[in-house]
Amino acid sequence: MINPRSKRPRVVVVGGGFAGLSAVRELSVADVDVLLIDRHGYNTFQPLLYQVATGGLNPGDVTYALRAFTSRYRNADFLRATVTGVDTEQRLVQLEGLDPVPYDYLIIGCGVTANFFGIDGAQEHALTIYTRSGAIRTRDRILTAIEDAAQDREGAPDPTVVVVGGGATGVEMAGSLAELRNAAVPIAYRTLDISRVRIVLVEMTDVVLGPFHPQLQAYAAKELRERGVDLRLGTSVQQVREDAVVVKGPDGEEQTIPAAAVVWATGITASPIVGDWGLPTGRGGRIDVGPDLRVTGHPEIFAVGDVALDPENLPQVAQPAIQGGKHAGVQIRRLLAGSPTETFRYRDKGSMATIGRSDAVVEFPFGLRLKGLVAWLAWLGLHLFELMGGRNRLAALINLSVRYFSWPRSLNIVVGDPAD
Amino acid sequence: MINPRSKRPRVVVVGGGFAGLSAVRELSVADVDVLLIDRHGYNTFQPLLYQVATGGLNPGDVTYALRAFTSRYRNADFLRATVTGVDTEQRLVQLEGLDPVPYDYLIIGCGVTANFFGIDGAQEHALTIYTRSGAIRTRDRILTAIEDAAQDREGAPDPTVVVVGGGATGVEMAGSLAELRNAAVPIAYRTLDISRVRIVLVEMTDVVLGPFHPQLQAYAAKELRERGVDLRLGTSVQQVREDAVVVKGPDGEEQTIPAAAVVWATGITASPIVGDWGLPTGRGGRIDVGPDLRVTGHPEIFAVGDVALDPENLPQVAQPAIQGGKHAGVQIRRLLAGSPTETFRYRDKGSMATIGRSDAVVEFPFGLRLKGLVAWLAWLGLHLFELMGGRNRLAALINLSVRYFSWPRSLNIVVGDPAD
Repeated sequence: MINPRSKRPRVVVVGGGFAGLSAVRELSVADVDVLLIDRHGYNTFQPLLYQVATGGLNPGDVTYALRAFTSRYRNADFLRATVTGVDTEQRLVQLEGLDPVPYDYLIIGCGVTANFFGIDGAQEHALTIYTRSGAIRTRDRILTAIEDAAQDREGAPDPTVVVVGGGATGVEMAGSLAELRNAAVPIAYRTLDISRVRIVLVEMTDVVLGPFHPQLQAYAAKELRERGVDLRLGTSVQQVREDAVVVKGPDGEEQTIPAAAVVWATGITASPIVGDWGLPTGRGGRIDVGPDLRVTGHPEIFAVGDVALDPENLPQVAQPAIQGGKHAGVQIRRLLAGSPTETFRYRDKGSMATIGRSDAVVEFPFGLRLKGLVAWLAWLGLHLFELMGGRNRLAALINLSVRYFSWPRSLNIVVGDPAD
Repeated sequence: MINPRSKRPRVVVVGGGFAGLSAVRELSVADVDVLLIDRHGYNTFQPLLYQVATGGLNPGDVTYALRAFTSRYRNADFLRATVTGVDTEQRLVQLEGLDPVPYDYLIIGCGVTANFFGIDGAQEHALTIYTRSGAIRTRDRILTAIEDAAQDREGAPDPTVVVVGGGATGVEMAGSLAELRNAAVPIAYRTLDISRVRIVLVEMTDVVLGPFHPQLQAYAAKELRERGVDLRLGTSVQQVREDAVVVKGPDGEEQTIPAAAVVWATGITASPIVGDWGLPTGRGGRIDVGPDLRVTGHPEIFAVGDVALDPENLPQVAQPAIQGGKHAGVQIRRLLAGSPTETFRYRDKGSMATIGRSDAVVEFPFGLRLKGLVAWLAWLGLHLFELMGGRNRLAALINLSVRYFSWPRSLNIVVGDPAD
C-alpha cells in the first residue's frame, strides 16, 4: 500500500499486461512505491484468448485480478483508471475523472490494439482476439452461427469462419476451430453436416508461422490441411464485409468468400490514444525508445512491450514484454543507486504454437525443433506453469485437460448471451 | 438424435433447469424421442449463483452446455429457441422464428422470474441472482461500487449492499458478501475503511431461514451479526430507488437506507410469458396441475418445478424440481405402457444454507440438525458431488476450495466489463 505521505520515489506503471506485471514484480524489492494503473481491473492472459474464442476456456480462466496481484507486494498498489495524458514537465499522469497522479519514474506498457492496415471494412466487420471482450464476441458469433445453421434457421448461411493471418495467433485459432468442428460439432450438433463448417486461413506470404524454421512451417501447414483447414497462402484480404471477405489469390484473381465471422489475427499496433500523450512516436504510433528502453528525450520514462517502437523489431509476444518490463524495473533500481542504465538485450527463449489437440511446434534458439505431441506437452507446461498465476493455472489446467483428453463427452461450449 | 422420420412418440421438454434435465435423464431409457428446448444454450446451476454475484466463482463454473447434456443420450436432442405458445389442439409447441414442433407428450419446466410483489421501484432498480446474467450484473455493480469508494472517486457513496429477503438465498448472499468485506476487501482495497462497506439484510418476518428449526434460525442470525451483517428483522421494503431503499421497521417507522446495490432475494414467480400459452394458471401465474403433475384438462402435458402451482406449496429449490421432472418422466413411461399415473410424492431430503466460509446450517427430515463446519462440509459435498456435472464440478471445486481455504492471497475478484 502506498502511504500518501511516503517520501520514497514513486514509480507509476501504466498497463497491467505482461510488461507491467513484470516491472511491478522486479520493483517489489526496490525502495520505491509502485502504483499500477490499468483501465480494467484484471490482467488478461492473451496467449490463451483463442481458447476463449473457441469455447474451450472460460473468460475467467484467463483473467486475473490486478488487485490480487498487487496485494502480494507490500510496496505496490493498484488504481483502475483510464490514462488521458502525461504531463512530462510536472511529472504527472493525467486520468479520466480522477486527480492526476505524480511520478518520479514512469513505465508505459499498454495500449496496443489490432492493426487493420487500413483495409476496407476490416475495422467495422472483423473480430479480434486480443482482448477478453473481443474473444467473447468472437466466440458468441461463431457458436451462434453454428447453432443457427444446425437448426436450419431461415436464411442461416453456412457457418464459415475466415481467419486472417498465418502467424502463431492465426494458426492457433484455425487449429482450435478445426478441433471444434471435427471433435465437438459431430456430437453436439448431430444434425449439422460438418462440411458446412468451413475454416479458411488466409495468409499473405507463402508460409504459415513466418519466424519458424521451414520444416516446422511445412509441418504446421500439412497438419492444418489434414484437419480440414482451407489454407490459402499467397492470398491477401481486399475487403471485409458484414457477411463475406474479398480476397486476392496468388493468381491475382479476386474471390468473395461468404463468412459468418472474420477473425483478424494479423498484427497489432499502439492504441491511437497513446499518440495524444505528448510522447515521441514512430511507426505504427509506437513510442520511440533508446537502447535502454527509455523514451527519447525523457530519461525518467520507460516504454516497454508492444507499445514501444523497438529497433530490433522483436515478435509481439509475451517474452519481449516480460523481459522489457523486468529491464525497466532493473534500470530504475540502477538509477536510484546512481548507476548508468544498461542496453536492453532480448534473450530468445524460443517460439511455440499449438495446432490442436496434442499437436504443436516448438523452436528453441539453440537449434532444437520439436513437433507433435512432445511439442504440445512443452507448450502446455510453459503456458500453465511458467506464465499463469495461482488459481487460474489450476482452473485452466483442468479445463484444458478435460478439453484435450476427453473432449467430446465433456464438451462445454457456453454461449454467453448477455440479454436475458 | 431425433430422426425426423422416427415413429416413436416424441416428448418435448421445455426448460433446461433442474426439472427439465431430470425429465430428460429419466426418459433416456424410454422408447421415445426427447427434444429439450431452452432459450439459452446452457443450464445454470442456480444454487451457486450467489457465488458468481460475489466474485467467488466464474459464470462458466456454474453453467453447463445443454448440448453437452443431451449428447449423452442417444434419444435426446436440444433446440435453442424461445417458446411463444402451445397449440394444445394440434399438439404443437410454437417457437419464435422457427417452425412449430409437434409433441405427443409435453413437459413444461421453465419460466420463473423474480417476484417483486408490486413493490414500488423494485422491478426497475433491484438486482436479482436467479439468472446467470443477473448474477453477473449484481457482481459488477457491487465490485464497481467498492472500487469507486476505494479510489475516492468524486461523489462515490459508501458501497452499501441491501439484500432483501432472509430465506436461504438472502442468507447465503449476505454471508458471502460479509466474507468479501471481512476477508478480501482489507487486502485488495487496503485504502478503504471496511466499515464503509455495509451489508444490510432485510427480512419481513421475525426470523431468517423461515422453514428451518428455530435453533438453526437463531444460529444463522447470530453468525450473520457476528460477521457484521446489519440484520433487520420484522422489516419490510416500501420502495426501491436507484440509490436507496425505503424500509419500515418493527416500530412502524420508515427509514431510507442509501444503497449502492439492492439485491432482491425474496420469492420467484412464473414468467408472465407462460400466461400467454393458453394453459390454466393460478396464483402467481403458475400453471394449475393435478396430483400427478399433469396440467388440468391436458392429460398429455406435465408442468413441473417452480412453474407449476403445487398444492403442497413446496420450497422453490432444486429438490422438488428434480423430483418433479423425474416423476413426469416416469409417468410418461407408465402411460406408454398403458398404466395409470401416480400421485407425485415429494421426498424431503432436508434443507441447507451456507452462512460463509466453513459455516452452514443443515436440517434433515429425520430430525438431525447440523451447524458450523460439519454442516458446511455436508453442503459442499452435496452441491459439488450430487448436483453438478463433470467439468464444472471440478472447476467449481477448485475455485471454491481456493476461495475457502486460502482466500486472501489468491483472491480473484474479476469485474467483467463488456465495454472495452
